[in-house]
Amino acid sequence: MSVQIVLGSKSDMKVAEKAVAILKELGLKYRLSIASAHRTPELVDKLVSEADADVFIAIAGLSAALPGVIAARTTKPVIGVPVSGAVNLDSILSVVQMPPGIPVAGVGLDRGDNAALLAAEILAVRDEKLRTALARYRQKLKDMVVQDSKEVEV
Amino acid sequence: MSVQIVLGSKSDMKVAEKAVAILKELGLKYRLSIASAHRTPELVDKLVSEADADVFIAIAGLSAALPGVIAARTTKPVIGVPVSGAVNLDSILSVVQMPPGIPVAGVGLDRGDNAALLAAEILAVRDEKLRTALARYRQKLKDMVVQDSKEVEV
Amino acid sequence: MSVQIVLGSKSDMKVAEKAVAILKELGLKYRLSIASAHRTPELVDKLVSEADADVFIAIAGLSAALPGVIAARTTKPVIGVPVSGAVNLDSILSVVQMPPGIPVAGVGLDRGDNAALLAAEILAVRDEKLRTALARYRQKLKDMVVQDSKEVEV
Amino acid sequence: MSVQIVLGSKSDMKVAEKAVAILKELGLKYRLSIASAHRTPELVDKLVSEADADVFIAIAGLSAALPGVIAARTTKPVIGVPVSGAVNLDSILSVVQMPPGIPVAGVGLDRGDNAALLAAEILAVRDEKLRTALARYRQKLKDMVVQDSKEVEV
Amino acid sequence: MSVQIVLGSKSDMKVAEKAVAILKELGLKYRLSIASAHRTPELVDKLVSEADADVFIAIAGLSAALPGVIAARTTKPVIGVPVSGAVNLDSILSVVQMPPGIPVAGVGLDRGDNAALLAAEILAVRDEKLRTALARYRQKLKDMVVQDSKEVEV
Amino acid sequence: MSVQIVLGSKSDMKVAEKAVAILKELGLKYRLSIASAHRTPELVDKLVSEADADVFIAIAGLSAALPGVIAARTTKPVIGVPVSGAVNLDSILSVVQMPPGIPVAGVGLDRGDNAALLAAEILAVRDEKLRTALARYRQKLKDMVVQDSKEVEV
Amino acid sequence: MSVQIVLGSKSDMKVAEKAVAILKELGLKYRLSIASAHRTPELVDKLVSEADADVFIAIAGLSAALPGVIAARTTKPVIGVPVSGAVNLDSILSVVQMPPGIPVAGVGLDRGDNAALLAAEILAVRDEKLRTALARYRQKLKDMVVQDSKEVEV
Amino acid sequence: MSVQIVLGSKSDMKVAEKAVAILKELGLKYRLSIASAHRTPELVDKLVSEADADVFIAIAGLSAALPGVIAARTTKPVIGVPVSGAVNLDSILSVVQMPPGIPVAGVGLDRGDNAALLAAEILAVRDEKLRTALARYRQKLKDMVVQDSKEVEV
Repeated sequence: MSVQIVLGSKSDMKVAEKAVAILKELGLKYRLSIASAHRTPELVDKLVSEADADVFIAIAGLSAALPGVIAARTTKPVIGVPVSGAVNLDSILSVVQMPPGIPVAGVGLDRGDNAALLAAEILAVRDEKLRTALARYRQKLKDMVVQDSKEVEV
Repeated sequence: MSVQIVLGSKSDMKVAEKAVAILKELGLKYRLSIASAHRTPELVDKLVSEADADVFIAIAGLSAALPGVIAARTTKPVIGVPVSGAVNLDSILSVVQMPPGIPVAGVGLDRGDNAALLAAEILAVRDEKLRTALARYRQKLKDMVVQDSKEVEV
Repeated sequence: MSVQIVLGSKSDMKVAEKAVAILKELGLKYRLSIASAHRTPELVDKLVSEADADVFIAIAGLSAALPGVIAARTTKPVIGVPVSGAVNLDSILSVVQMPPGIPVAGVGLDRGDNAALLAAEILAVRDEKLRTALARYRQKLKDMVVQDSKEVEV
Repeated sequence: MSVQIVLGSKSDMKVAEKAVAILKELGLKYRLSIASAHRTPELVDKLVSEADADVFIAIAGLSAALPGVIAARTTKPVIGVPVSGAVNLDSILSVVQMPPGIPVAGVGLDRGDNAALLAAEILAVRDEKLRTALARYRQKLKDMVVQDSKEVEV
Repeated sequence: MSVQIVLGSKSDMKVAEKAVAILKELGLKYRLSIASAHRTPELVDKLVSEADADVFIAIAGLSAALPGVIAARTTKPVIGVPVSGAVNLDSILSVVQMPPGIPVAGVGLDRGDNAALLAAEILAVRDEKLRTALARYRQKLKDMVVQDSKEVEV
Repeated sequence: MSVQIVLGSKSDMKVAEKAVAILKELGLKYRLSIASAHRTPELVDKLVSEADADVFIAIAGLSAALPGVIAARTTKPVIGVPVSGAVNLDSILSVVQMPPGIPVAGVGLDRGDNAALLAAEILAVRDEKLRTALARYRQKLKDMVVQDSKEVEV
Repeated sequence: MSVQIVLGSKSDMKVAEKAVAILKELGLKYRLSIASAHRTPELVDKLVSEADADVFIAIAGLSAALPGVIAARTTKPVIGVPVSGAVNLDSILSVVQMPPGIPVAGVGLDRGDNAALLAAEILAVRDEKLRTALARYRQKLKDMVVQDSKEVEV
Repeated sequence: MSVQIVLGSKSDMKVAEKAVAILKELGLKYRLSIASAHRTPELVDKLVSEADADVFIAIAGLSAALPGVIAARTTKPVIGVPVSGAVNLDSILSVVQMPPGIPVAGVGLDRGDNAALLAAEILAVRDEKLRTALARYRQKLKDMVVQDSKEVEV
């Protein structure tokens, strides 16, 4: 049970790191590669066909074709993370507005963390232990909010 | 193994029907309810806690809080479908721009069909038969494009 | 007579502080808590049902569901403050574009100050003293503009 | 205890009628006038200074200055309703993005109904009977959703 | 023959200074005041009715009502300058999207310089000397482009 | 004293007719031509250099270069009218966001009427009779609003 | 010397027909196929590698990945035509905002005609006869504007 | 065989330099000039009519008329590069949304590099050697992605 993270460019690493941190915390195996839908389409093809991952996380900015291009080559779940830039609506809309038949699961701008959590939720559908890990993570979030609230409460 | 579809309003039925058609075609069990995050929050709570579904599809327009509100109450995968209206960026951004920790899998505007396919892809991670059904559906899409191309080719 | 301020996240404190400063200046009682619509929905429920405040101010960014989620649980006036980020239209539209039946009173991006003034205006409907405090505040604003104008006038 | 509705133009009547229907249902007194911030500024001045209403609802499209212009002349709560047109972001942003010191309570595009409900919520702060009427209305909304759900449930 | 510059806020001075520099260079008389459409509406009224200027330049950000509010009180030409901020589309659309009957002459974001040039063009309709000054300024612009081109040309 | 209206395309006639109606009502002379900045640039050059008009009204959609191209060839006031289409922000921003040095007076989407009124206001700077005509027109607007208000008032 | 037109979907035929009409008028050979970047990626690969065209025209809506996906597989010029829909900014930005290294020549929304003209201009770089055909077409455009102007001129 | 680069303003040099670097690497001749569509229209006319270039690259921000104005005066291919600023949608839409008949090949925001590559692709249609240079450049891009991937791969 593992996750394949694909970055469109090395400059997207800061977003990928958020995903990696979550996957590690949840004890999930992952692989991380750079493969550009536009500069190395063959590499994307190869990566998709050879990956034995159960879920893909594709991270890309601008006209963010990478998630859709991966989704076009697999029926495994593909999570798309739009990366911020000068326009932002470009990557968000490119990731989300997929044509009928080829879904991408779009998460928010630069939300590598949520992509990883969504990947975990998908894998947890049939994995009791991962469900527990997710519940624990969710509880930690709650505790942090409660703690934050205590610090500022009036 | 089943999918819970939740509509924010009866007026979103045309989008839900696209989801239902796909789920039926793929032989997936589903339940469909209307429950508004804003008008019937207790109903949403009840629905989420009682549902024995593996995946949620939440369909909503305007300030489309429904997918996020469901995601806030479960760690099961939640797919959000923004519904078109006078502005469109409102529902798209409301569905996608979730805060860190609570992912929603956003699909395109009015893309009930893609929500259903994504739900199927998620359930297929551990289901050989469903993977085959998805591959068959994907092939059908391809055949249709090839057929369309033949009709117009010059 | 009091105001309950709710922040979606500790990072929204700078916006909350603008609200607090105004409430203090107008001599209004307030309580301030952090409770996330997405990370701690039960906390929001509890907070809304237990608050003996007359007006709510909800401050949130991104897909800013907090004001709407509070409004869904009370018929007291709820003022929503969108918080700025990379996109801005996300929080503005999430706060404003509520479905029929569940109003949120949206104020401008990061406008904690205006949220507090609006809360005071609401409470002043039946409070002579508060109306006087508001009139005095308004006069101070005018005097500042007149003073500013004198400094730059040509 | 009453509400003054002001329309920027006769063409905004369809939005005003949504407000009127709600105010009537809740048993609230109201007055309705047309007064344009741009074409009849003196009329707006006169209307604001002479109105003995407790809350204003201002309905306007395009560069929707009316709510702000009324808010500039009173410290009573002013609810602004942006009206839809070719651009939509124009009226939404004009209503919401008020400068510090002069709040407008913005509701959604064409949401005359929510403006009326918000006005009622404001007046209900010190009115037990109106709070009951609002609770009843909210319950009716819930019942309608439950009813709708029964019709479509699978 | 003179120009009245009105700023919505002292923070708009950097944009006003661009206008002032041009007006001085063209030898045009001007007056500069701060008067907010929202904080000091009476001041705006007074300023418009007492000004013996031939053209108004109104500079404002956010929901930039100032140009329209001035235009509502005079049939002299009013030039509106939207000021940049977190959203930008708010001030641009507020300045430009005026209702039928009350025109504002919108110039670009922060373009105090172009507002001054447009004011000069308006006053030059019946002023030979000013037309010459404008022609000279235009020529200077051309010379600067030619000079810039020489520096970088390959 | 006259106005030169230039349309980028015959399809913009409905917007030009609004301008013509106003100019006629105010007794202003005008000429109307079609000349595209992109399809007939020489025609635009010729038209600008030969026109003995005092003010230009340029009406264009999409990447609405026409107003700016005319402004580049004259220091007479140029009023730009963006024409509506599938995007709308394209023509609005193209008309308004001119570079420093070359102002265009942008009016609202499809606002041929306001362009004509602005042209009249410009010509009225030194024309007592036209000022009176404008005052009369403004009064007529006011009367219509008052009349409309009487019809709907409650 | 020929042009390969690729449509993402049969529903884009109305845009393709505009391209075909121009190519025919200019006497250019072309081929037209449907091949979806998302539904039939292998078909796109095959089409690009086997096409003996000199220029590609790719027509697609929504998250319009097709032009970029073709550009990723060839260094021949690729012209991208965004197709209109509910959002429009999605297809425009997807076509235009390509990453460094892989250019697409974006034309306007639904502008199949301009795509064909741009293809012709590219092929005319080394083709005297085609340059003449283009000049003739451009002249025809001019004549039409002149003719249109005569009809409406005042 | 050469490329004429035209900048609307000296401040666009950083974008032009990206184009120059690519043209040099591919061994293409180029000329670079500054000529503003709005400040020096005659210079643009002169430059277009005298240039013996095969392709134009026009770089401009704001209401970026330059590419269209050049395209209006030639049937040679014109590549338009929108330059970033406070709004960004202004220059992107101005470059892309050209009227039927006058195409501009729009590339991404600040993408001088892609403009140069597109120019090279156009010139390579009939130039074997340039095609080889482009293939080599494309390969270099691929190698860099592969190298980047190796550095970060997990």
